[in-house]
Amino acid sequence: MKIVVVGATGTMGKYLADAFEKDHEIIRVGSSGGDIQVDITSLESIENLFKQVGSFDALISTAGPSYVGPWRNLTDREFRKGLEGKLMGQINLVLVGQHYINPEGSFTLIAGALTTDPQRNFANAATANGAIEAFVRAAAIELESGIRINAISPTVIEDSPQYFPYFPGEVPVTMRELEYGFRKSIFGARTGQVITPR
Amino acid sequence: MKIVVVGATGTMGKYLADAFEKDHEIIRVGSSGGDIQVDITSLESIENLFKQVGSFDALISTAGPSYVGPWRNLTDREFRKGLEGKLMGQINLVLVGQHYINPEGSFTLIAGALTTDPQRNFANAATANGAIEAFVRAAAIELESGIRINAISPTVIEDSPQYFPYFPGEVPVTMRELEYGFRKSIFGARTGQVITPR
Repeated sequence: MKIVVVGATGTMGKYLADAFEKDHEIIRVGSSGGDIQVDITSLESIENLFKQVGSFDALISTAGPSYVGPWRNLTDREFRKGLEGKLMGQINLVLVGQHYINPEGSFTLIAGALTTDPQRNFANAATANGAIEAFVRAAAIELESGIRINAISPTVIEDSPQYFPYFPGEVPVTMRELEYGFRKSIFGARTGQVITPR
Repeated sequence: MKIVVVGATGTMGKYLADAFEKDHEIIRVGSSGGDIQVDITSLESIENLFKQVGSFDALISTAGPSYVGPWRNLTDREFRKGLEGKLMGQINLVLVGQHYINPEGSFTLIAGALTTDPQRNFANAATANGAIEAFVRAAAIELESGIRINAISPTVIEDSPQYFPYFPGEVPVTMRELEYGFRKSIFGARTGQVITPR
């Protein structure tokens, strides 16, 4: 299977790319490193990405830039970070990528527990997550040729301990649990679902 | 109570403004008609709105422009309609309006059943709804001075029969049920909730 990993130089994306590399052809996509570079806030950059990738079987995205910080500093300007990044960036990966993906292929986007379990400083990410979760449910009934789409919605992850203080009471998801969440989406048959790893 | 109704010239907003007018001071805000005009896709226009409104006790929004149409026509360009309208427009009403609202005041935004019950042609609205629902949960734990925020999430409404064919199997919400959903948010004590009228 030819799997495109967008966010492959980040903590989640690198782990997943390494995990799936044993059995699959992996295209590592990052904002600066990786096999191909993309700026997911730019439609043109996303179009260029898929022209380089060509056809593929699965795309997974762990690319979720958003504003993290005090509510009092959160204005339209800061809010745009998550709006153009984690939200519209990931949606454009699907809107453009659907014209390149093989029949029966799958998209797996990243959301997060903040959708329903908010934490201080993360209103921007929470909003993007809620949007992505609703989008995958809506897109699943519209995509053609058996193409599937799901979102993975982890809480804070094991390999990002710098975020632990911001998520009181959340038991971190292990990297292996995260990987298995993605496995359900990529190698299973479900579509339009929000998968909570663990 | 001084209540700002954004979307007051639309089907929902007009009904609600009329219903609450008996007991409250209503400021009707519309894109063209009403007491004050606003373009919710423009931050500057929203800032001008609140300068004219001054302090207030409750803001309710029924303003939800989004793209409705075939998935095959849905590109980044069409998606921007809901992103700038129902999503960022409503969020900016809160981010700016919080500096004008009285302590213990409330914001009530409009979402919709498409968040969890998708229908064809409505992926853009579904995404905006999911974003708004997550935003109110996140904003509720950040807003200060006892300011509350909720979202109302109706399915298709009784007075918009032109949409009935797009919502097979959905029993329309009556206008009175819709009104009472808003009453729970405005006159009750809850915050951070998605209220399903009926």
